[in-house]
Amino acid sequence: MGELVRFGVSMEGDLLKQFDEMIERRSYANRSEALRDLVRAAIVENQWQHGNNKTVGVVCLVYDHEMGDVGHKLTHIQHESEVQIVSSMHVHLDHHNCLETIVLRGKPAEIQHTADQLISLRGVKLGKLVIGHTGHGL
Amino acid sequence: MGELVRFGVSMEGDLLKQFDEMIERRSYANRSEALRDLVRAAIVENQWQHGNNKTVGVVCLVYDHEMGDVGHKLTHIQHESEVQIVSSMHVHLDHHNCLETIVLRGKPAEIQHTADQLISLRGVKLGKLVIGHTGHGL
Amino acid sequence: MGELVRFGVSMEGDLLKQFDEMIERRSYANRSEALRDLVRAAIVENQWQHGNNKTVGVVCLVYDHEMGDVGHKLTHIQHESEVQIVSSMHVHLDHHNCLETIVLRGKPAEIQHTADQLISLRGVKLGKLVIGHTGHGL
Amino acid sequence: MGELVRFGVSMEGDLLKQFDEMIERRSYANRSEALRDLVRAAIVENQWQHGNNKTVGVVCLVYDHEMGDVGHKLTHIQHESEVQIVSSMHVHLDHHNCLETIVLRGKPAEIQHTADQLISLRGVKLGKLVIGHTGHGL
Repeated sequence: MGELVRFGVSMEGDLLKQFDEMIERRSYANRSEALRDLVRAAIVENQWQHGNNKTVGVVCLVYDHEMGDVGHKLTHIQHESEVQIVSSMHVHLDHHNCLETIVLRGKPAEIQHTADQLISLRGVKLGKLVIGHTGHGL
Repeated sequence: MGELVRFGVSMEGDLLKQFDEMIERRSYANRSEALRDLVRAAIVENQWQHGNNKTVGVVCLVYDHEMGDVGHKLTHIQHESEVQIVSSMHVHLDHHNCLETIVLRGKPAEIQHTADQLISLRGVKLGKLVIGHTGHGL
Repeated sequence: MGELVRFGVSMEGDLLKQFDEMIERRSYANRSEALRDLVRAAIVENQWQHGNNKTVGVVCLVYDHEMGDVGHKLTHIQHESEVQIVSSMHVHLDHHNCLETIVLRGKPAEIQHTADQLISLRGVKLGKLVIGHTGHGL
Repeated sequence: MGELVRFGVSMEGDLLKQFDEMIERRSYANRSEALRDLVRAAIVENQWQHGNNKTVGVVCLVYDHEMGDVGHKLTHIQHESEVQIVSSMHVHLDHHNCLETIVLRGKPAEIQHTADQLISLRGVKLGKLVIGHTGHGL
């Protein structure tokens, strides 16, 4: 993280008032933390669009474990993947439906490719890739 | 806009360095302007999710003017709409295809409804609603 | 899920060719599964915008566990929350940084509120709410 | 566009019912048109992420024409740009605020670069790039 640097920002009074109202509703302790979150989100998005360094992503899946061979196929893709599967969590939503979150480490394009393979499986009803970050330097 | 207010922000040195690199690539003159843009975008998104005041939206359409009666139907929906159609621009992309940008004023839900009607027409190949703002107080 | 219903879809040949290329690259077995995924994603987005039924969301956080009291505060918010916290998974990214995925059940607005509280904490560097679904009827 | 091709799609009855309700609310005439719109939107997004062919984008700006030299700078960037500026429309929102929609033709990365230059200007309060398409083959 390095040390904290302090600098001045100027903003129109009306705009600042609306910002203060919004961040209070979202439970931010102060403006600096809210601005840092906006900055970090922009940097992470930029990194996934343009960068090629290893990073972290999370795949969230909702699937019906009784449809075909989906559970086995999900495991197979994870074992064959070129990215590192760090960990996964399984939640039983009901008799049929499961939710799984899978944490992956690798380059953005590789993580995207593995996510595509998981999400496109028959039996997987809903799949999202969350673009994340290692946290280092953020 | 009101007068400019100046306040201090603290940020980790590593994070600030990455932010400075990103905003330089995007041609920002300084940090304040880049931060104001992040803040304004967050406020406008929040206003469309939770607000009920009149605002401004832009519908962008790509359509084939020779498919059915699409040109006439687009005009009809705009004349019947509960929102105010401020202005529209038509661009001939090629012999078949047109691009149209339509500026609408009204409440978020009303603008969304008119946008849905325009975008769902047969002949309209691509339609997007851009959530905008009157600029007042922003 | 109910039984499978079969119906006919018509599409321009050029469009279908591009669609087939895209879904092959994304590893879909066939058009039906790819179309169902597009439909399900649209329904889930619609449900979160307009619905009020209980559903499922996933909050993904990257945070520095040594910054202030963030670990304790994250736990506290989860215990005080009006939504049900189904399960969470913790991954150690490095000496400082943690990634956590938290599965929540509740109404969309309630899940959003708890997500806002978690994401806005100082120490949380990156936070995303993934809009999910119970899987029932999807 | 080429000729229409007809093919069969299978979908769970519960899912189809929810889809039919959603597309009726959005004014679609039938399932085929709604499915084609989902497919087209996915193809256009894919094209902007991975393609390098010339395409079309729309930049929507809200700005205060009295702030600095913003009007002149907007014109200057458009004249210097490597992409083709097809057309633009200007709307007077109030005494201070203007809305402008600008249609650009070029490669995705070039359009993005010109959009960044326009959006980052001081005086421009809100800027969005809409990823479009020439309509050809869509």
